[in-house]
Amino acid sequence: MSIEAKTIAVIGGTGAEGSGIAQRLAKAGHRIILGSRDPAKAENAARELQHRLGGGQLTGRGNREAAEAAEIVILTVPYAAQQATIEEIRAVLAGKILVDATAPLVPPKVNRVQLPPGGSAVAAVQAMLGDSVRVVSAFQNVSAEKLKRHDAAVECDVLVCADDAAARQSVIGLVADMGLRGIDAGPIANSAAAEALTSLLIWINRKYKVPASGICVTGLPSV
Amino acid sequence: MSIEAKTIAVIGGTGAEGSGIAQRLAKAGHRIILGSRDPAKAENAARELQHRLGGGQLTGRGNREAAEAAEIVILTVPYAAQQATIEEIRAVLAGKILVDATAPLVPPKVNRVQLPPGGSAVAAVQAMLGDSVRVVSAFQNVSAEKLKRHDAAVECDVLVCADDAAARQSVIGLVADMGLRGIDAGPIANSAAAEALTSLLIWINRKYKVPASGICVTGLPSV
Repeated sequence: MSIEAKTIAVIGGTGAEGSGIAQRLAKAGHRIILGSRDPAKAENAARELQHRLGGGQLTGRGNREAAEAAEIVILTVPYAAQQATIEEIRAVLAGKILVDATAPLVPPKVNRVQLPPGGSAVAAVQAMLGDSVRVVSAFQNVSAEKLKRHDAAVECDVLVCADDAAARQSVIGLVADMGLRGIDAGPIANSAAAEALTSLLIWINRKYKVPASGICVTGLPSV
Repeated sequence: MSIEAKTIAVIGGTGAEGSGIAQRLAKAGHRIILGSRDPAKAENAARELQHRLGGGQLTGRGNREAAEAAEIVILTVPYAAQQATIEEIRAVLAGKILVDATAPLVPPKVNRVQLPPGGSAVAAVQAMLGDSVRVVSAFQNVSAEKLKRHDAAVECDVLVCADDAAARQSVIGLVADMGLRGIDAGPIANSAAAEALTSLLIWINRKYKVPASGICVTGLPSV
């Protein structure tokens, strides 16, 4: 694969979704810095992923140090930790792309759509950070379990929303590096659809007794 | 096809989405009453659909008369007309299933998700009508053009949301009669996902220059 290797921080990278994303990006040749509140935990997780992949450039740091050293920052923390984690890293985000994978799941009814006032948890972050950070919404609908099996195809599109068209394209490129199809899904406000779908897919998983439903956009030219 | 024929009103049945749904349900053997503010227009539309299908039980009436005569009422009007149309027919809805296909598109930016306060235009109708009417959300993501070509397969799932599980199942059955796959997508609150997806699919149509993108749920056992 011929890609332009980037330095990418995965904040919350010791969790299931984050480590799935980190693995696939590392496998594609990107330099990955896992971020965690606990730097030692991030370092251990990076070593473990490197071992699992049999290589790859993966290191671990504290959240802020990880974000500071990266060109692109991917946020994969639970909804309850989203705001606090952003506060932790916001001082080092200026000029960067922040990919936010947050879905506003509200326990205990995580299979019920409960969008925040204003409609989107990720659009709220863009509003909070202002124009100096290009916030991109992605990965809300992709099963962590499927991402982690890094050799397997994932039958789920990644809806990519951002107000900045170039940032959308950059993230669609990263998604392709991971072996998935990214779809240009419009402005950050449209993240509401992807965020709402997360709860709906959890409902479907339980209702149909399947481990990992997903979504695919139909009617597109094959790419 | 062996189905239990039902009497179904399609309010807004002279529009593109409504007439597509009406055609396919009539073809499956259901008795269809198109509803319009103008009864003569509904009658003409019914005759035209009957002619196009080469048969089928289709009649046309005013909105209220159509809803009154039906067991199941399907609402397919623009968002701007949703509330007023419900007011027109609410007195005759008690005990019935109301299938609401409304997506809260707000011109001019119909390709931008703009969910109403509270999150869902269809959940708002359930709240308005109370428990005597079982409101079911469906059809927000299916292209009218594809529905109208009643012999063609439609590569788009229908997300079906309702608080009443039996009502969800009834509508999933109607969707199957139409030759599409209905997905049990949970409570009426989850309609927010389907409603938001409508704007997102309009964005995708324009961005990728395709006439009718849709969505498919992946990871389910084939049915």
